[in-house]
Amino acid sequence: MLILISNDDGIQAPGIDALRAALEELGDVYVVAPDRPRSASGLGITIHKPLRAENIQFPGSKAKGYAVNGTPSDCVKLGIQALLPCKPDIVVAGINQGPNLGTDVLYSGTVSAALEGVINDVPSIAVSLASWESSDFDYAAEFTRRLVGVVTGHGMPEETLLNVNVPVLKNGSKPSRVAVTRLGKRRYENTFEKRRDPRGKEYYWMGGEVMDIMAEPGTDIASVRNGEISVTPLFFDVTDNNFMNMVREWNLDKIL
Amino acid sequence: MLILISNDDGIQAPGIDALRAALEELGDVYVVAPDRPRSASGLGITIHKPLRAENIQFPGSKAKGYAVNGTPSDCVKLGIQALLPCKPDIVVAGINQGPNLGTDVLYSGTVSAALEGVINDVPSIAVSLASWESSDFDYAAEFTRRLVGVVTGHGMPEETLLNVNVPVLKNGSKPSRVAVTRLGKRRYENTFEKRRDPRGKEYYWMGGEVMDIMAEPGTDIASVRNGEISVTPLFFDVTDNNFMNMVREWNLDKIL
Repeated sequence: MLILISNDDGIQAPGIDALRAALEELGDVYVVAPDRPRSASGLGITIHKPLRAENIQFPGSKAKGYAVNGTPSDCVKLGIQALLPCKPDIVVAGINQGPNLGTDVLYSGTVSAALEGVINDVPSIAVSLASWESSDFDYAAEFTRRLVGVVTGHGMPEETLLNVNVPVLKNGSKPSRVAVTRLGKRRYENTFEKRRDPRGKEYYWMGGEVMDIMAEPGTDIASVRNGEISVTPLFFDVTDNNFMNMVREWNLDKIL
Repeated sequence: MLILISNDDGIQAPGIDALRAALEELGDVYVVAPDRPRSASGLGITIHKPLRAENIQFPGSKAKGYAVNGTPSDCVKLGIQALLPCKPDIVVAGINQGPNLGTDVLYSGTVSAALEGVINDVPSIAVSLASWESSDFDYAAEFTRRLVGVVTGHGMPEETLLNVNVPVLKNGSKPSRVAVTRLGKRRYENTFEKRRDPRGKEYYWMGGEVMDIMAEPGTDIASVRNGEISVTPLFFDVTDNNFMNMVREWNLDKIL
């Protein structure tokens, strides 16, 4: 099995290292990841400047590594189309430090790395540790290894990916359950903080208090809160078929 | 009516100027756009550095302008949450130079600007001129003005946006029809071109020949090819309900 790993926290992040170590037991691993943190990069790609891929060694490992001066999406594209010997069997993105829940998935570099895999017709999984503090990625990495086994056994429908969030429980115990969830809605109170620089010019810092406005049972947000591992199947053909019928009734030919 | 305009080609682009001029007839216009081209930025946002919003004047216009050192998504967030006097009635992104069709919409800064409007509960439209050469944005801008009238009259469902592509016809004639379409699939043959710099180090340019692999009747791609204006309703709750049922049958609790 040929496995491509990427992330958005950068190739030096502990989460990607735990993932690499776990997945090496399954096959040949390539790690192609940003040379520095690229959180919240969405599906941005780099078209106006060239990309460089620097060789990285992992002590005591046969995995091949490349640090790329681009976004997570650049890394997966470059990996599949230029660096790997052939198309990988699976793309695994993560393990992200911090949750990727609800509306987050649209901004997330981790989910975008997996989406880039899907766009290139490779089954893909995004994995996040739902904690900003814990550095214990081992259980999440082991779970991911077993999940990769299941996914490659069953196969996945085209144009889909799995978004996985693993909670960290206070007493160090294992999650009780795997919940197959839908996306909740997670909004941020983006109170931009206005400041003045030493020359008197204004600037803004993006704040971002989380307001979980839709955490009903069945959502990824509720599931992680309950200490469960959340697995959300995502599909990126974003055409809205219901709304199409409404717009047809507007008779837009009239305004040509 | 309070209108927020943004784009990804930058505040100096001719497409955004044509749009501003057309929409000023409908109400108060704010233009909050990147200070330089930010194509293919996806829904990236800027959280690790501060944002600046420089005041811009438009000759002979009462519209207010801000050039922001961020992504299209940053611009719309900052506009709605810090620069505008209150929530706008509509966000209009564009007019993009070049089409945004099929899979493009996931990478597009123009569509992401509209999506950011939707995330902030504002009805939003993304508009692109389906030509890389033509600088005649006037008809597309007029059509958009009329479309804004229709949209604000009818309202739009939550979490949806309209993605509009206006073709440029060879003989200068008007499009024959407005087609309400679904997304086609548009893939790029990303032949990364490997080069060596003067110091012998390798680097890669992302190429990108378009391969329209799904341009069946009813898709946005087919419609623009036929000289029609394509209007595609998009919905960004990307949960895949069908795949959810499949994953439930995998009994993932077994691999906890």
